[in-house]
Amino acid sequence: MRRFGRASNVNIGATGRATGDGAAGACSGQVGQIGSSVQQHRLPDVAAATLLSLASRCHARGWAQATSGNFSVRLDARRFVITKSGLDKGALRAEDLLVVDLDGNPLTDGRPSAETPLHAQVYRRRPGITAVAHTHSVAATVLSRALLAEGYVVLSGFEMLKALVGIDTHETAIRLPIFPNEQDVQRLATQVDAELGGDDCVYGYLLAGHGLYTWGTSAGEAARHVEAIEFLLECVLHGRR
Amino acid sequence: MRRFGRASNVNIGATGRATGDGAAGACSGQVGQIGSSVQQHRLPDVAAATLLSLASRCHARGWAQATSGNFSVRLDARRFVITKSGLDKGALRAEDLLVVDLDGNPLTDGRPSAETPLHAQVYRRRPGITAVAHTHSVAATVLSRALLAEGYVVLSGFEMLKALVGIDTHETAIRLPIFPNEQDVQRLATQVDAELGGDDCVYGYLLAGHGLYTWGTSAGEAARHVEAIEFLLECVLHGRR
Amino acid sequence: MRRFGRASNVNIGATGRATGDGAAGACSGQVGQIGSSVQQHRLPDVAAATLLSLASRCHARGWAQATSGNFSVRLDARRFVITKSGLDKGALRAEDLLVVDLDGNPLTDGRPSAETPLHAQVYRRRPGITAVAHTHSVAATVLSRALLAEGYVVLSGFEMLKALVGIDTHETAIRLPIFPNEQDVQRLATQVDAELGGDDCVYGYLLAGHGLYTWGTSAGEAARHVEAIEFLLECVLHGRR
Amino acid sequence: MRRFGRASNVNIGATGRATGDGAAGACSGQVGQIGSSVQQHRLPDVAAATLLSLASRCHARGWAQATSGNFSVRLDARRFVITKSGLDKGALRAEDLLVVDLDGNPLTDGRPSAETPLHAQVYRRRPGITAVAHTHSVAATVLSRALLAEGYVVLSGFEMLKALVGIDTHETAIRLPIFPNEQDVQRLATQVDAELGGDDCVYGYLLAGHGLYTWGTSAGEAARHVEAIEFLLECVLHGRR
Repeated sequence: MRRFGRASNVNIGATGRATGDGAAGACSGQVGQIGSSVQQHRLPDVAAATLLSLASRCHARGWAQATSGNFSVRLDARRFVITKSGLDKGALRAEDLLVVDLDGNPLTDGRPSAETPLHAQVYRRRPGITAVAHTHSVAATVLSRALLAEGYVVLSGFEMLKALVGIDTHETAIRLPIFPNEQDVQRLATQVDAELGGDDCVYGYLLAGHGLYTWGTSAGEAARHVEAIEFLLECVLHGRR
Repeated sequence: MRRFGRASNVNIGATGRATGDGAAGACSGQVGQIGSSVQQHRLPDVAAATLLSLASRCHARGWAQATSGNFSVRLDARRFVITKSGLDKGALRAEDLLVVDLDGNPLTDGRPSAETPLHAQVYRRRPGITAVAHTHSVAATVLSRALLAEGYVVLSGFEMLKALVGIDTHETAIRLPIFPNEQDVQRLATQVDAELGGDDCVYGYLLAGHGLYTWGTSAGEAARHVEAIEFLLECVLHGRR
Repeated sequence: MRRFGRASNVNIGATGRATGDGAAGACSGQVGQIGSSVQQHRLPDVAAATLLSLASRCHARGWAQATSGNFSVRLDARRFVITKSGLDKGALRAEDLLVVDLDGNPLTDGRPSAETPLHAQVYRRRPGITAVAHTHSVAATVLSRALLAEGYVVLSGFEMLKALVGIDTHETAIRLPIFPNEQDVQRLATQVDAELGGDDCVYGYLLAGHGLYTWGTSAGEAARHVEAIEFLLECVLHGRR
Repeated sequence: MRRFGRASNVNIGATGRATGDGAAGACSGQVGQIGSSVQQHRLPDVAAATLLSLASRCHARGWAQATSGNFSVRLDARRFVITKSGLDKGALRAEDLLVVDLDGNPLTDGRPSAETPLHAQVYRRRPGITAVAHTHSVAATVLSRALLAEGYVVLSGFEMLKALVGIDTHETAIRLPIFPNEQDVQRLATQVDAELGGDDCVYGYLLAGHGLYTWGTSAGEAARHVEAIEFLLECVLHGRR
């Protein structure tokens, strides 16, 4: 499946179509020379560009303020690229990303996002997923605290639900599970894994007082899911007043 | 009637004046050679630019997130151009538009917006209309659900009503009908047609939990109508608290 | 008094300082040749640039949507320049402005803003004022309707009050009078004149369901007053919930 | 400690990393020639660029409207640079900054911000701090008035708290003290000093009906603190409805 094209300027819109030169396959890209462990994990330009675009898009919406939020894209069955810890998501460069394995262990230099285990959980459980986005919005933060006792936010009857892959009717409802926030991210990932697994009916989840995790089979789909869910959370928030 | 000029960069402001080179008539444009059915429906550059500008303008306001929303402009008495289905309205290009007839049948390659029948209904019933805009805003989504039982949103006494063509006083009220959202868009278009026809006193309508449909005798007028109605919906939403 | 400098790119920030080449006096500028009534009222480049900047600044804040809002700057004791009627305030050009006298009569070609009498009232009554801004914001629209019966909005105890010329303490309160909106703008101007005159303690007023009028001794001061008052109206609106 | 690099274009993101040429140490910079008191206090280019970037960043967020807000960076143990009084923080230039000592006395030409004593208090009491930001947001203004009787805003349990230096868990709470606004800024600074001193557990404070003061060991850290606290204040404001 071609998800993004080779590009000098890769722009991933919410449809996932990379608007670049778009000729070569992305995932293999420039993997490096045989025999060099560092170069084996060299970050392909396209993957870097894709991830930077996703992070930048979310930051521009106000969903990754004060170095919050984290974003990743899959490289292959065993590795993904994630934003480093504690950086301004509106000013990232390729050197601010690093490659990790599906246990979240860094394979290139640097300190990965503290929430890497939550990304790894998605990639392990959902083989078709190639991008994960974690955003911090006011709506997600407020609603996840207000509705923690219920355990989920219900999004029901909205046309915008059809922006979520596989949903072709507004006459439906989805639940966004809410997990209590947890300092031990590994334990949190284990809990998410135990409760959600790779359930295709789950499009994302909330961490109380924290934010939203969602994903997609491409960076564009992940961006579309973030936009749709954050929009719906705002609708729910305003509808409660 | 000259509604937009020939331009390399056509910018349609809310007044409908195309700020381009502005020399040639727009509607005929470069229609193609006799005898070629594909080229007969080739999309004139000006129409494409006009429509892209309208979509981009609405997307920039946050009213077409996550590939939602759809926009169209009339080509002639029998055809209009509409945005294709499922694309990021902030990153459209000419190839993302297609020509359809007034029954909504595509005349060029591609899959038109799923809501094409609603656009076609407007063009059939309202011969003077040359642009249709469908937006998804938080205010429209929330209010259309809250007031569905009433069947309409009343906009009364606002100065901004004078931005709607034909209204020259704030001492008036208009109703935005609210229709229950419907999966069968053809059936929905039939219902809208039966209840609204081409009533000149109706400036737009809402689909519950979905969004706003409005239109104009030019793309600029449609843009102005969208801006005015979305502004007023926000005023109503804030005024209810 | 030098209020703005000659510039190719005049940028009027909220302090009123024109950040351009800044050499020549603005008000006289390039007035035209003796004996030509049209050229007598030719719009000086600097005045045009100043006014375009003020309108653009307010439009960018969302306070002049759907061609609403109007803006003016004084040329001399007898004339001012105002934005023409019904145009997108985010896309104005010099040809979209026209010169009027203090009775609001156009002195150059075009149709002035319908609300010209309200601008003229300010210039007649307040000789030191050189710019007037009329904005349409959600906060101003909602509050002016909610508090019409009281007849004014009280802004009390805010630090931001010190952005209003002549106010050097937060330990004060000002009132923004609210007038019922009126179709006969001339009559409205007469009413405003009768009730407010040129009272220096009045920094602006609201038209119910319509918007804000405010002014300044320079375009920068007017911009600062608009920003300060619109900010405070938002604080009042949010503080009521 | 290297906090910012030498740069022609210094961009201070929220992480504090200056993305410029980044070679020379910032604090000493180009201090001037021995024997010239004016040149002794010449403003180093990097410090100017850093401060302009911080002010611009906050202004772009809407937190310094109508010339409100003020920002400073430390030069050395005895001096800091602060924005001049009454200027548009979105259009500042190097000449709009001036050097002051830790008593707030200007060492270069110009009128410093009226709130200079509050900045000086931070630099005197907190030797590690190199940047101070004072913002005016709707959330800070509204909440500081609503909760003045309590004397503080509690921010508890939010993940965003971890954006504040030294906080590595969401399972905590901080208090933002609220002081009544005061015309005599020197007296206010004395009060703040008496009540807060250089308490490391205090990340900022509010002035009622006025705004937020916060700081950082770098301009980037200060920017991150402003973003985090303003975000949390919005969450508290929306959570109260």
